[in-house]
Amino acid sequence: MRILWTHGDANGIGPEILLKAFKARRQSEHCYIVVGSYCVMKFYAKELGFQVPIEEIHSLDGLPLSNERLYVLSLSCPIKMKVGTVQADAGALSMQAIETAAKLCLAGKADAMVTAPIHKEAIQAAGYAFQGHTDFLEFLCRKEGYNAKAQMILADRHTKLRVALATVHVPLREVSETLRASGGLRPHIASLVQALRRDFGIRSPKIAVLGLNPHSSDNGVIGREEVEWIQPELDALKKEFEVSGVFAADGFFGAKHYKHFDAVLALYHDQGLIPFKMLAFETGVNVTAGLPIVRTSPDHGTAFDIAGKGIANPKSVIEATYLAEEIAEARRQMLTQSHSYCEAGQHSR
Amino acid sequence: MRILWTHGDANGIGPEILLKAFKARRQSEHCYIVVGSYCVMKFYAKELGFQVPIEEIHSLDGLPLSNERLYVLSLSCPIKMKVGTVQADAGALSMQAIETAAKLCLAGKADAMVTAPIHKEAIQAAGYAFQGHTDFLEFLCRKEGYNAKAQMILADRHTKLRVALATVHVPLREVSETLRASGGLRPHIASLVQALRRDFGIRSPKIAVLGLNPHSSDNGVIGREEVEWIQPELDALKKEFEVSGVFAADGFFGAKHYKHFDAVLALYHDQGLIPFKMLAFETGVNVTAGLPIVRTSPDHGTAFDIAGKGIANPKSVIEATYLAEEIAEARRQMLTQSHSYCEAGQHSR
Repeated sequence: MRILWTHGDANGIGPEILLKAFKARRQSEHCYIVVGSYCVMKFYAKELGFQVPIEEIHSLDGLPLSNERLYVLSLSCPIKMKVGTVQADAGALSMQAIETAAKLCLAGKADAMVTAPIHKEAIQAAGYAFQGHTDFLEFLCRKEGYNAKAQMILADRHTKLRVALATVHVPLREVSETLRASGGLRPHIASLVQALRRDFGIRSPKIAVLGLNPHSSDNGVIGREEVEWIQPELDALKKEFEVSGVFAADGFFGAKHYKHFDAVLALYHDQGLIPFKMLAFETGVNVTAGLPIVRTSPDHGTAFDIAGKGIANPKSVIEATYLAEEIAEARRQMLTQSHSYCEAGQHSR
Repeated sequence: MRILWTHGDANGIGPEILLKAFKARRQSEHCYIVVGSYCVMKFYAKELGFQVPIEEIHSLDGLPLSNERLYVLSLSCPIKMKVGTVQADAGALSMQAIETAAKLCLAGKADAMVTAPIHKEAIQAAGYAFQGHTDFLEFLCRKEGYNAKAQMILADRHTKLRVALATVHVPLREVSETLRASGGLRPHIASLVQALRRDFGIRSPKIAVLGLNPHSSDNGVIGREEVEWIQPELDALKKEFEVSGVFAADGFFGAKHYKHFDAVLALYHDQGLIPFKMLAFETGVNVTAGLPIVRTSPDHGTAFDIAGKGIANPKSVIEATYLAEEIAEARRQMLTQSHSYCEAGQHSR
């Protein structure tokens, strides 16, 4: 398979962790292509003394499926390096790389994209009005005419823990209204079920849903949402999906009940991210479900404070790469199965 | 020392875990007195076949400091047992036991109280308009003329993790306003510092404060509270206390930063309780700081579903008892030190 890596903000740890990830994944059967700047990748390889064979390319057409060298699909985007700082041109380059990689995946020229971290202020300085990868990718896919409704899933291959978020970067006081305005639980559960089937190969996924308020409101004593609409909606959804809950989040994670489910739907950021990071701090991966393309990313930021020092930990981006390969493989198999099913169907007619 | 145990709801697991705790703590130097119903304790001892010497008493006056037997200070409160169900008379008994125990502690006749779980619906059926132990104890102490501002601290002797909550049973959407209306961070930090000094013997406690919004708002991008008042207030408090933050809660617990602090101030229930229960599920204890008396309790409920079956786990109530003894000892030592200091002062004059 062809896996695209975007190197993210050139002044952060992105290029370094990709060089390290290439060393770690070189024995695999896949071909890794960095999308971004050849000069940036050469700069870090030289700075850090990494013996990685890097080759600049300008198109994926005719590229051999080889892991002998790390290819860099170089964008004509000028950049002056200022390691560890916010720079508009680094922001612009990081976004152009994402756009290029997404289009290549949409065109079927690559199988998955793994994105190293970008910097919010740098992309804003470059004139981009996006929050980050997720909304930008959703926008790009829709622009190309695809259905796309991104859903953030945190996944860990080791513990098999998968946590989806019903709301992500929403102020705490607005969580309840944002969740309700987004259509309640249904779209999040439907999307999660689809992702678990398509990307993780789980035919009848079991999902646990957490409550919103402390103790899941104790029957309406601490907040009214559970009683008024969350529990009734979930109970209705139980006829359609294997969903359980709502569970009080503290006891649920304390008693390790997540082990009985294929995924947990958390209703807000910290409710899902606190336990996820505690259980999968170095190996946790961010998966953007709900897109026509496969996209994963490490679960950390640009880490400007340690950029260029050679001490960045590549574990999470390596895990993100593994998972991207697994998801791409699962989608491919599902496609093959449905093709053979159609063919079988045609024969029997 | 004399440690009072209230048996909580007679139809729950309270009496059973106290019988088990007595067996476990019998070798200690302390005297354990259940406050509640002698009949209830005898009922469970017989039902479950526990060979525990139980003696009914009606006053603590002249009671020997002995752990030869489990004393029961019996209240004249009629109760018909209906194990595993909500009963108003069980609710009434459980609250009367708390009131009696609190008064004995306030009068200096006992050193600490450890409370087995009560049932919210049962106490409400009995006509009590309290949420639970904490507000009832605060009310009782104030009625007797004491300063009392209860603060919930979750403590684990094994990991040394201590988590205080700035808001407790508050609907998620109201957390921000409730916190601000309660006077912001100051009263919670001042109370926590006092508790760490007085109850845990830590002279200069280091406290970490968590942010309210995801990523602690990312400089005001996700909610305005951190930028507008939380961070400025915390920065001002840094001149007075060893406080740090605010920290994004997910990364803070993921990276185990809590190990560098004597306590963590979480701003809402699940933010503190999810990580606490994950790290200290069976050994975590609830401490009510800010009262003139020492009160701890196990970190679980009445568990009606397993009441009377002999399978309830006494670990948490045993831990709560240990911690109550430690806190009572710390307060006693502080009192002795301040007495000797005063005496030394008088001599030198």
